[in-house]
Amino acid sequence: MCAAEALVEIHRGPFLESQHMGHAVICDSTGGIIEAWGDPETIVLPRSSAKMIQALPLVMSGAAQAYGIGPDRLALACASHQGAPLHVQAVNTWLADLGLGDGDLICGTEASRDKELRFQMIRDGETPCRVHNNCSGKHSGFLTLTKHLGAGANYVDPSHPVQVSVRDAFEDVTQMESPGFGIDGCSAPNFATTMHGMARAMAFFASAGQRNDAMSNAAGQLVEAMMAFPELVAGETRACTHLMRAAQEPLAIKTGAEGYFVAILPKRGIGISLKIADGATRASNCAIAAILVRLGVLDAANPEVKRFLNPPVKNWDGLVTGEIRPVAGLTGAA
Amino acid sequence: MCAAEALVEIHRGPFLESQHMGHAVICDSTGGIIEAWGDPETIVLPRSSAKMIQALPLVMSGAAQAYGIGPDRLALACASHQGAPLHVQAVNTWLADLGLGDGDLICGTEASRDKELRFQMIRDGETPCRVHNNCSGKHSGFLTLTKHLGAGANYVDPSHPVQVSVRDAFEDVTQMESPGFGIDGCSAPNFATTMHGMARAMAFFASAGQRNDAMSNAAGQLVEAMMAFPELVAGETRACTHLMRAAQEPLAIKTGAEGYFVAILPKRGIGISLKIADGATRASNCAIAAILVRLGVLDAANPEVKRFLNPPVKNWDGLVTGEIRPVAGLTGAA
Repeated sequence: MCAAEALVEIHRGPFLESQHMGHAVICDSTGGIIEAWGDPETIVLPRSSAKMIQALPLVMSGAAQAYGIGPDRLALACASHQGAPLHVQAVNTWLADLGLGDGDLICGTEASRDKELRFQMIRDGETPCRVHNNCSGKHSGFLTLTKHLGAGANYVDPSHPVQVSVRDAFEDVTQMESPGFGIDGCSAPNFATTMHGMARAMAFFASAGQRNDAMSNAAGQLVEAMMAFPELVAGETRACTHLMRAAQEPLAIKTGAEGYFVAILPKRGIGISLKIADGATRASNCAIAAILVRLGVLDAANPEVKRFLNPPVKNWDGLVTGEIRPVAGLTGAA
Repeated sequence: MCAAEALVEIHRGPFLESQHMGHAVICDSTGGIIEAWGDPETIVLPRSSAKMIQALPLVMSGAAQAYGIGPDRLALACASHQGAPLHVQAVNTWLADLGLGDGDLICGTEASRDKELRFQMIRDGETPCRVHNNCSGKHSGFLTLTKHLGAGANYVDPSHPVQVSVRDAFEDVTQMESPGFGIDGCSAPNFATTMHGMARAMAFFASAGQRNDAMSNAAGQLVEAMMAFPELVAGETRACTHLMRAAQEPLAIKTGAEGYFVAILPKRGIGISLKIADGATRASNCAIAAILVRLGVLDAANPEVKRFLNPPVKNWDGLVTGEIRPVAGLTGAA
């Protein structure tokens, strides 16, 4: 952590008010580091940025094919969605097709992050369901695999066949033994790796089309699904959705709690792992946008990019009082 | 900012997941530094941690006395309140006593942070008012002074007599020229100083009882008001309120946006200035509690202290998945 370096600044008037440190690694498909900030050997929990890895066993096991899981549901399995009506309906239908319901999810309840739905539920006296949890798509994927395997109901137990297969896949794509796990916001184990390990994993996904083994084929399907359904991976106003739509070449990206972000560049076989050391999402959004501008994948002049790269800080009265911006040089702009 | 040092850690399972850097200065009434972390010369915007300074002209001008502003309203003038019914009613009454109303506040609207009231307003189809803004007490103080001076309505303009007097007071207690200001969340100017300057200011408040000049008398009244009404300074569940109640000796503390916190120890004539470099409140709450434990003002074993010093990190299902904790040694515990 101590070797983290400054990546994002918060300005207010003429002053640098706050600053976010972090680590980032850009890696090619051979595992080589193309560029890095901070310490590539820092141990990290990639949180929801690991969801496409956690979805690998769903595809590799044959469960996705057996249950007719199309690319929309694969995108949801990789998603931290808004709990907007779009997402809630899709997950409910998926669960119903499995003969299951909200009570079978083990992700806990979370209020919808879609303001209109959240307010409507408050007005209607409804309390949030598990399906509204941003991880309910990932958990529907876990439930599909559980059913396919005929395994027990407690699919978040680290010794459950689903999580054992997730760990195996995680260690395969990170190309290292995981030093352990923490329990995630949705109660599933979240396996640890290094910044470099996570970048290698993303480069594995990015280069999947260059290979023809079962894991690469599964990875390729998941990347295609994320890119085909950016609105399912996160939702309106969210960085994942807007930046994937704004990309000038094929791009899959995924945020994670505590300042994580990853990117997959299939055309180049390149993966990116980013962690803001203090865990701030405002900074991980800005820094991933900056690095993608640096690589020429995003255009800094695109308004959809600017809203994450250089968002204004506004006050309660709507006045612009400051700006979030990447440190000088991070975008690579002159 | 670069000289900030690690103050607070976020642990998940066996892993250090995130880390907050910061600056802190403990200062005596002569302006001498007793102890410091990070860089005492860092320029900072103390945000709402400066509210008791911004209230000095209200008292020194005679406006508070002329308008019968008691210690409850002085506490509100120094507050970042919850917008709970308690606060909303008190501010509305204050405004009515001035012959003014919600529309005279220039702080912008903010949804109440009191969940029950916020949900009730959504159910009733009501939109947030300016009085619900956490700064509405400070602004009521500004309006009182404006009326007393017979000045213009735009009391947040940096050249308005109210803000000129705030700047004068700010430079007096920080004992340095302010390098400028940023516009705060509530549209008032927020004057910059150094970490050391802000600690000197807090030591001025802490030692006010040792002197008998007009500014010291005003400072003493404000500190007494904050300590007498901790529930008005913030509200239930907030660090300011709970830690002031838990203090083992007289103590006034005040949070500010972007990871600020200050403390005033009247018995010792000591002031504390704290800034988390990345702006995180979870870290400023923890670090100020830790430093106050270090000084023997708070008891680390007190549950009301532990909820900010060592709060568990819980997930959507209510499971404890980690812990926020100060870095080893910060509390001074063996």
